[in-house]
Amino acid sequence: MRLSERPGILSMFEDMHSVSPVLERYTKQVLLGALWEGPELSGRDRSLVALTVMISRNQTAHMASYLDLALDSGVSPDEISEVIAHLAFYTGWANAMLAVAVTKVIFERRGITTDQLSPATIDLLPVDAIAEEQRARAVVDKFGTTVPELVQFTNDVLFADVWRRPGLSLRDRSLITVCMVIATSQVTVLSYYLNRSMDSGLTRVEVSHIMTQLAFYSGWSTVYSALPVVKDVFESRPN
Amino acid sequence: MRLSERPGILSMFEDMHSVSPVLERYTKQVLLGALWEGPELSGRDRSLVALTVMISRNQTAHMASYLDLALDSGVSPDEISEVIAHLAFYTGWANAMLAVAVTKVIFERRGITTDQLSPATIDLLPVDAIAEEQRARAVVDKFGTTVPELVQFTNDVLFADVWRRPGLSLRDRSLITVCMVIATSQVTVLSYYLNRSMDSGLTRVEVSHIMTQLAFYSGWSTVYSALPVVKDVFESRPN
Amino acid sequence: MRLSERPGILSMFEDMHSVSPVLERYTKQVLLGALWEGPELSGRDRSLVALTVMISRNQTAHMASYLDLALDSGVSPDEISEVIAHLAFYTGWANAMLAVAVTKVIFERRGITTDQLSPATIDLLPVDAIAEEQRARAVVDKFGTTVPELVQFTNDVLFADVWRRPGLSLRDRSLITVCMVIATSQVTVLSYYLNRSMDSGLTRVEVSHIMTQLAFYSGWSTVYSALPVVKDVFESRPN
Repeated sequence: MRLSERPGILSMFEDMHSVSPVLERYTKQVLLGALWEGPELSGRDRSLVALTVMISRNQTAHMASYLDLALDSGVSPDEISEVIAHLAFYTGWANAMLAVAVTKVIFERRGITTDQLSPATIDLLPVDAIAEEQRARAVVDKFGTTVPELVQFTNDVLFADVWRRPGLSLRDRSLITVCMVIATSQVTVLSYYLNRSMDSGLTRVEVSHIMTQLAFYSGWSTVYSALPVVKDVFESRPN
Repeated sequence: MRLSERPGILSMFEDMHSVSPVLERYTKQVLLGALWEGPELSGRDRSLVALTVMISRNQTAHMASYLDLALDSGVSPDEISEVIAHLAFYTGWANAMLAVAVTKVIFERRGITTDQLSPATIDLLPVDAIAEEQRARAVVDKFGTTVPELVQFTNDVLFADVWRRPGLSLRDRSLITVCMVIATSQVTVLSYYLNRSMDSGLTRVEVSHIMTQLAFYSGWSTVYSALPVVKDVFESRPN
Repeated sequence: MRLSERPGILSMFEDMHSVSPVLERYTKQVLLGALWEGPELSGRDRSLVALTVMISRNQTAHMASYLDLALDSGVSPDEISEVIAHLAFYTGWANAMLAVAVTKVIFERRGITTDQLSPATIDLLPVDAIAEEQRARAVVDKFGTTVPELVQFTNDVLFADVWRRPGLSLRDRSLITVCMVIATSQVTVLSYYLNRSMDSGLTRVEVSHIMTQLAFYSGWSTVYSALPVVKDVFESRPN
């Protein structure tokens, strides 16, 4: 079922029609038409972008609809589970707790049970040991004396555990991290995560259309604030 | 009815009195007294500022009271409708959807129907063709190869359609865009929109008092982060 | 009662278990274990950090649990009252109003009445007259012609009244202001408030562990965006 055919989305149009007829037109023609039907980015990626914005900004009103859409578009329950745990670290525990409460209802309704989710402890993905050691040492060198405990959590939990769990690919983890960073206007850390996402497989065309998708869900101004960094990253990379 | 006399506002004082007597005093003396009674900015503009902050930040708790206040202060239903559609683009679709849900109730209660709102398609305001072509070409030159689809939406939908709809004046569109930018800490794009707002009629005195109004609704720190840009813009303009 | 033993927190684990088993593990082992049990920062300070993030970001879902925790950890009702009034100015009136609504229920349940709170007007803390005059003059010099009314509110209400109320120590006011600034990504004003917090008694060790606590509640990326400033401030101070 396409986004434009979903009951939760359709019922919105009645409200929109009575409050802002032009917004109804933009939603039908531009958002659900031109944007979501665009072939350059999969519905799966588009729903990951939208969901990440909603979790990062604590926006629960339509989160359930977009969870359903994500699950129907090829995001697995396990991937949803890992997205929420990943964003707990990046955007704060309270945001993740809210996403848990909404997701619980959707999982129950769909009969999704814990045995479809990765266990709490699992064999981790292999890692490029040299690159990872460089990354870890760079953080220690930069902030090890300022915030030793935080650097330890960053290296021992976030990078040595969260990022290496197999339930969500490195490409998808990078994608949602980039979206979270832009949706919450953390432009200073964008360059690192954008390069990381392209190192792990996101193409320029995908990044470009992720920015467009983000503009609609996170707002034009957050994306235009980020574009100078995106342009620099594109120009500084061979691929 | 002044803000300080509205039932929704008055009932807040009981809560405040039992939780923070000093906040009750600041609200009565400073917010509703000195600030809202200040003659340098109209109640209409003040309510647009407050409403824009609430939509941009997804703050629904008092949105209904401020919608009522805006409508009583000279903001027309059609202007509300256009504010929401405008902010859908700038601050994200989910924020606009939430505003739609709150506004629908207010419109129904007041008997406001769709025939009081601009239709989805309408004759657009004329535009300074040369200035607009320069603006459009500047975006293409800057980001056309990085995000071609987004640049196309920006030029064909946001500037060639949204900004030119007659239901909300260019001055008011600029005003709410500036407020949204500051309320969500997008300082890097502020200079452009602040100049645009002053080109379309906002005076220095109005901008100055919009900043004060914003301080109370969006927080002191967001405004102080923006003030260096405001100062630069004031100093760089003849008027 | 420790955070990990509170009924509101315990009931969360069931939801987490069915949605993200790994998040349940991180919450138990890392958040409630390693982090909250860390001896370098008191439970009182930790709950102030968490509560400030929630108020600054309009996150009500677990605010009641954290208010209870704060009150059980040595934050007095009067201090809660002053935190909310302080953050009304820094993060916006609508955020404070939401906190008032949640706090009212907690105060009623605990039988906390207005006579346990500082009155609206009270003898103010003494101030270093020379330092305060320098601060006030610096704001006037910088922004006095741009936003005269806002500068007046800043000097006459925020600094000459709010900051000097005895119900919340200068150290705690600085602590929550620093946390609010980072949780809402206002990095440009961080240096001033961080220095102010260390001038009023926060140690490097406390600041360092406040950053770690913030990482979990406000998100890794907000804290890493702020760390260059924290490092600079540490290096520029004798103590």
